[in-house]
Amino acid sequence: MSSASSVSSASSVSSASSVSPVNHQVRLAARPSGRPTPADWEFTSEAVPEPGPGQFVVEVSHLSIDPAMRGWMNAGASYIPPVEVGAVMRAGAVGLVTASEHPGFAPGDDVYGTFGVQEYALSDGRGVVKIDTSVADPATYLGALGMPGLTAYFGLLDVGRIKAGDTVVVSGAGGAVGSVAGQIAKIKGCRVIGIAGGADKCRAVTEEFGFDAAIDYRTQDVRKALREHAPGGVDVYFDNVGGQILDAVLTRLARGARVVICGAVSQYNETQVQGPANYLMLLVARATMAGMVIFDYEDRFPAAMAELAGWLQAGQLVSREHVVRGGVSDFPDVLLMLFDGANTGKLVLALDRD
Amino acid sequence: MSSASSVSSASSVSSASSVSPVNHQVRLAARPSGRPTPADWEFTSEAVPEPGPGQFVVEVSHLSIDPAMRGWMNAGASYIPPVEVGAVMRAGAVGLVTASEHPGFAPGDDVYGTFGVQEYALSDGRGVVKIDTSVADPATYLGALGMPGLTAYFGLLDVGRIKAGDTVVVSGAGGAVGSVAGQIAKIKGCRVIGIAGGADKCRAVTEEFGFDAAIDYRTQDVRKALREHAPGGVDVYFDNVGGQILDAVLTRLARGARVVICGAVSQYNETQVQGPANYLMLLVARATMAGMVIFDYEDRFPAAMAELAGWLQAGQLVSREHVVRGGVSDFPDVLLMLFDGANTGKLVLALDRD
Repeated sequence: MSSASSVSSASSVSSASSVSPVNHQVRLAARPSGRPTPADWEFTSEAVPEPGPGQFVVEVSHLSIDPAMRGWMNAGASYIPPVEVGAVMRAGAVGLVTASEHPGFAPGDDVYGTFGVQEYALSDGRGVVKIDTSVADPATYLGALGMPGLTAYFGLLDVGRIKAGDTVVVSGAGGAVGSVAGQIAKIKGCRVIGIAGGADKCRAVTEEFGFDAAIDYRTQDVRKALREHAPGGVDVYFDNVGGQILDAVLTRLARGARVVICGAVSQYNETQVQGPANYLMLLVARATMAGMVIFDYEDRFPAAMAELAGWLQAGQLVSREHVVRGGVSDFPDVLLMLFDGANTGKLVLALDRD
Repeated sequence: MSSASSVSSASSVSSASSVSPVNHQVRLAARPSGRPTPADWEFTSEAVPEPGPGQFVVEVSHLSIDPAMRGWMNAGASYIPPVEVGAVMRAGAVGLVTASEHPGFAPGDDVYGTFGVQEYALSDGRGVVKIDTSVADPATYLGALGMPGLTAYFGLLDVGRIKAGDTVVVSGAGGAVGSVAGQIAKIKGCRVIGIAGGADKCRAVTEEFGFDAAIDYRTQDVRKALREHAPGGVDVYFDNVGGQILDAVLTRLARGARVVICGAVSQYNETQVQGPANYLMLLVARATMAGMVIFDYEDRFPAAMAELAGWLQAGQLVSREHVVRGGVSDFPDVLLMLFDGANTGKLVLALDRD
């Protein structure tokens, strides 16, 4: 099940793309300091590429908008290389194969890949998977059946080692990863508390995603609320946000707790990251804090996706996408929605071609 | 092998203790904010206790001076309850049983226990172990054969899971725990780099304790020095200090690294702890940060102590104690030596009774 909401947006650039064989692109113009600004982006146009031998062309339909994008814009090695200044901005996306000289892909195939913020991508098939749009909407392959769902899956099961009866806390609980993480924990028999910003998101967390409780960090004292909702302490904390919320949860860890560091969306635009001042609670609680990168689990993606799809089809897992319709030129604004907490569920930019 | 250095100190109070049956004590007078001051302590005298049934009396000879003491002075539950205001300050110590109504302990027994900062302690035997002063000096039972040695042992072997060939970094490398940790890592076939403050300590780290390299955090750029000494990254980091040094090492973690949080001596007197701003490197390196508390391993203490004693007697392990002679009234000043980094090896206050 997926729900979509729309926001209106100017899409003059993308409108133009449907009438001429032009590939509109968004490139990184400069490395931002703090929050990205319009000056950090450059809009370019190229001819739609033609496939050479072993290549195919994808018409991109849905762009995945991810907090991790902010990290990719920084210089310096991280878990993947940065996007170079002048390059098309990296993005996961789904689309349709429109031309192919590749034996494994044919026109009409629906595919997922790292196609970038552009209307057409040339691919040699590396890292590209076919998707079955009869199982779920294309956008769902950017959410519960895509990287966010897989991140939640391996983060909770492999890194967090959840087991039935655990008290699990998820931050960014209204987001793409968090909403799936909490639902997986529920499926596995855990008591699950979500932390999110705003009454609407908190309502979605409990009513739509089925968490046992939600804490609104904008209006509630997280530490105090955790004392109420997790009186026995937190066994597993799945952290998407970092900052003060991480610090609050650290004070409530149960003995032997596992803290899964998935991301830190509250910190990505900070020039000076706020480290967890309460990290010595790891010592008090004999707890572990571990980082994860989803690419390490690639060989297990098919099995995990099959399990996630099964839950989705059985109605045990709700995938919610926050779909914004527009052109690639809307990308900079849509990206900022993430850092403003404006989305509930997976944020997707669906490219208008009318 | 143990070495001792002495500092002169006024000990008029303790001198008095040898001529009258008085038990001089140091009590917590107030909870310090930041660095402890004289006003945080109270000096009291009581009659030397007499043992009741199931009790014995210990004449304390050596007090263990530990960074953890600073944490015990704070209100609020940690891994053990705080020292109450008005109570004798908690301290590990060795001493001699002088009177006993306990079937398991006899006058003349050398013992280790949490006897507190006082000249005589009444005990019911809980947490008290007999020590063999023919194996090592009493002070060594506060160092390599005591809590510091055991902390290094379980922290590296159980939490850090070191294996031959690992690159291991130890901070506080000139201290009681760090000096033993590095030596255990060497015994286990690791390459070991110590971080310490000052040329003298760094010399001790390499020449006396046999580390492969030492980094002087007072004069060197730790991050840069690690790039030189650990070009392939750090597999295990044993952290005693926290703060900027922890942050520097986090930037140099190898894939799958283990960070053992043993303590944070740089932060204990800070009213606002500096959290590790680079904690997201755990994600980049797929690394784990874990806290430990030595009390969890109590059932394995005898086996670990036997192994440590074997290394000591075989000359593979050097135990260095920094012994200050004085009275219990010198305790407040000696404690501050720890936070000034004035000690190399285990800091011990040996009680003068002449």
